[in-house]
Amino acid sequence: MSKVVKSLQDAVKLCGLQDGMTVSITHNLRLGDQITGEVLRTIHDMGFHDIRLNSSGGVMGENGRYAAKCIEDGVITRIDGGGLGKTGVANTIQRGNMKHIARLTTHGGRPKLFADGFYESDLAFIYAPCCDKRGNCNGRTGNSAFGSMGYAMTDARHAKKVIVITDGLSEAPIWPISIDQTYVDYVVEVENLGDPQKIAGAALRITRDPISLLISEYAQKILEASGYIKDGFTMQAGSGGISLAVTSMLKEYMAKHQVCGEWGMGGITTAFIEMMHQGLFKALYDVQCFDTGAIESMAKDPNHIEISASMYANPDIPGGCLVNDLDTVILSATEIDVNFNVNVHTDSLGNCIAGAGGHGDTAQGAKLSIVCAPAYRSRLPMILDRVTCISTPGENIDVFVCQLGIAVNTALAKNADLFLRLKDAKLPVYDIHELQFMIEKKTGKPKPIVLGNKVVADILWRDGTVIDHLYTLGDYSF
Amino acid sequence: MSKVVKSLQDAVKLCGLQDGMTVSITHNLRLGDQITGEVLRTIHDMGFHDIRLNSSGGVMGENGRYAAKCIEDGVITRIDGGGLGKTGVANTIQRGNMKHIARLTTHGGRPKLFADGFYESDLAFIYAPCCDKRGNCNGRTGNSAFGSMGYAMTDARHAKKVIVITDGLSEAPIWPISIDQTYVDYVVEVENLGDPQKIAGAALRITRDPISLLISEYAQKILEASGYIKDGFTMQAGSGGISLAVTSMLKEYMAKHQVCGEWGMGGITTAFIEMMHQGLFKALYDVQCFDTGAIESMAKDPNHIEISASMYANPDIPGGCLVNDLDTVILSATEIDVNFNVNVHTDSLGNCIAGAGGHGDTAQGAKLSIVCAPAYRSRLPMILDRVTCISTPGENIDVFVCQLGIAVNTALAKNADLFLRLKDAKLPVYDIHELQFMIEKKTGKPKPIVLGNKVVADILWRDGTVIDHLYTLGDYSF
Repeated sequence: MSKVVKSLQDAVKLCGLQDGMTVSITHNLRLGDQITGEVLRTIHDMGFHDIRLNSSGGVMGENGRYAAKCIEDGVITRIDGGGLGKTGVANTIQRGNMKHIARLTTHGGRPKLFADGFYESDLAFIYAPCCDKRGNCNGRTGNSAFGSMGYAMTDARHAKKVIVITDGLSEAPIWPISIDQTYVDYVVEVENLGDPQKIAGAALRITRDPISLLISEYAQKILEASGYIKDGFTMQAGSGGISLAVTSMLKEYMAKHQVCGEWGMGGITTAFIEMMHQGLFKALYDVQCFDTGAIESMAKDPNHIEISASMYANPDIPGGCLVNDLDTVILSATEIDVNFNVNVHTDSLGNCIAGAGGHGDTAQGAKLSIVCAPAYRSRLPMILDRVTCISTPGENIDVFVCQLGIAVNTALAKNADLFLRLKDAKLPVYDIHELQFMIEKKTGKPKPIVLGNKVVADILWRDGTVIDHLYTLGDYSF
Repeated sequence: MSKVVKSLQDAVKLCGLQDGMTVSITHNLRLGDQITGEVLRTIHDMGFHDIRLNSSGGVMGENGRYAAKCIEDGVITRIDGGGLGKTGVANTIQRGNMKHIARLTTHGGRPKLFADGFYESDLAFIYAPCCDKRGNCNGRTGNSAFGSMGYAMTDARHAKKVIVITDGLSEAPIWPISIDQTYVDYVVEVENLGDPQKIAGAALRITRDPISLLISEYAQKILEASGYIKDGFTMQAGSGGISLAVTSMLKEYMAKHQVCGEWGMGGITTAFIEMMHQGLFKALYDVQCFDTGAIESMAKDPNHIEISASMYANPDIPGGCLVNDLDTVILSATEIDVNFNVNVHTDSLGNCIAGAGGHGDTAQGAKLSIVCAPAYRSRLPMILDRVTCISTPGENIDVFVCQLGIAVNTALAKNADLFLRLKDAKLPVYDIHELQFMIEKKTGKPKPIVLGNKVVADILWRDGTVIDHLYTLGDYSF
């Protein structure tokens, strides 16, 4: 009647892990994750080699150092999925230390590529703050409660074997059930999965930087002028400082104009929870809780709805994913180029610093995708002739906003109306080349960076197409 | 953004139904179902032929007459799944009117046979009392709320196309989500799905018949003597008069002896809800609500947990199904034989009157399966040399109880201890041949019935093995 086994090592043995197999993990706890390192250490210490890792997001924080060690020792020879993780893994890989080329995609691409059989998992490790002895589990209660288990649902569904690791084992049945026992082979109890306070690293905060605030104001005015902010609209906004500022301004606007949106989606933050509680959204769809306010809400608000990564963004799921029904999304970028291609994977020196997340999924799905970024960083212009890495192709981006003004992607016929609306609203709209020129007048045109000549990762669009690569580090990288 | 189409006919067209394909339906509303007839009439009137029907249970009530007409007109040429339905379908088939042999199995066998590809569904009709425009749905609210959608989850997962039919369409997101939009192709709005008050036909009632009460008392004493009724035990009991009487007696016993079970499962009735509310069970697992008390509870009690048919009873589901963890189950029978084989499919004249339901699943899974039935019906003895139809092979039955006494299946070595316990408790335990002899002293030994000579249905064990057949009607059938 019980699937509980004594140790992680026992569970891995029982699952029959072998050299050459793929293990999968998810990044629900993000920077608060204190268990992935333990999982990797177990695999390392059991003497496995040539293991492939599929992670829904980057291997973050201290866990990244274990992952890097596994790569250097040949324990991990390929990384697939949502990202690398900048603390260790990315740098190790970009120094050319991993045997196989990584294959990275978006949050929606991952479940699609599992369903296609392009990705596979022989053994999934699922982290659950609340789990019964048969493996029924959720993320809502317990010391390490992190809310939605949306990414892990993909692993449960597609992995050949599943181990649930929990620090909240219950002898009695648990409810609600996010992942049920029919997917679970073994349960392992541990002291502590991690610290949900640290999911986003530090406390999420509306930007106080005047430049970012100006960008946020422009973004909010674009939303207002766009015509989308009306009863029944849908939106996603992230957890960055600009996104939170826009969300806060939007909240005031919606309350003042008595607009009630149908739903918000994300990565959910307290900002969205407050809007739901104020009746500004009827419901929230949540694949990843970003702070404790969101986590607490998921445990008590029935209209804060947990969704799988497939329901969130899988482009091929037969019944359709929710990003397809987004009206608007607020996105960030490390760089953008004159064709509106966006880079979120690397900094301007080519160092991989993040995964694609849901950037491409929401940008493609939403009717209006707004990318916000400063015009320059450390005197480097952020509008380039060609981004260092294409994370989201420009045909999915509608508007770019920086502190110097706004550029509408009029290469897309559908944006002719938007362009006029923003002009009518007296917003500072420029052609993107004009904006680039304005920026370069301040920064100069920097010498192009030279990347290394070895591909270390394929960047896969959400449909599986290779759209760019990560390379070994060049002369300008640190 | 909306999957709502104007009519059932439009939805069927859009799904590309063709002659020779299989459509699947579920029996959540049972005798209160007022929509299956409409579905069948649509298929009939659209001119389809050679359609195969896969239903989770019998096609009941008036719907059975439409189904029978479809069979007679060659619109439906095979029936697979959980049952036939005695109002029309069974009789039509047993008069030899259906082209192909039906392939019937248990509640757990159905999802297994879908997963194996032995069953398939080109188009599933899912009935949902509450559904949003994207197809997210549940059975908890709305005029026809029937609670758990456990059986329909199988159809959602395995059908190539899915139409949700609802009489509670919501423009806004609904929650909780029992079947999500990723499985759903179209949504059709109708006036009325049915009457949940009639799910079980009439109001469920503890038996008042003195013979049935005596049987119930014996069953309860077996439970007490068995040693299973202790903290943390698990059980299932059905919705029949004897089951409800046993449940009621057990409730008193548990309250008096301060026993708290881990969970109850079923087909859930108000009787179980009351036990959960009294703290006698920590949770209930529910694949089918049997009355309005159960339906109302599912809408408000979080520890009344909706489960899929797979989680309930699929013998091959990797993580294991819940029937495997049952301590005890109370079951019925139309007949039993000296090898403890049980018939629930036919009466003693060979007329098919029911499907296997979860009988075989729970009998095989539970540590102690108790079959209750009267010693004789209309002067026909109910212990036979060989049952008219084997629904559950005797190796899965531990005890038979009738008003004349109790027989333990001691052919199973595991039951030696149980036999002694019941003897020690001074219960009237006999060898089953002895019991048969006692009954036949009263009834005489009837002339064996002669069934028709054409097989009309295969009876498949939950693993897919053919264990018996239904035949055309013989001379003694009505």
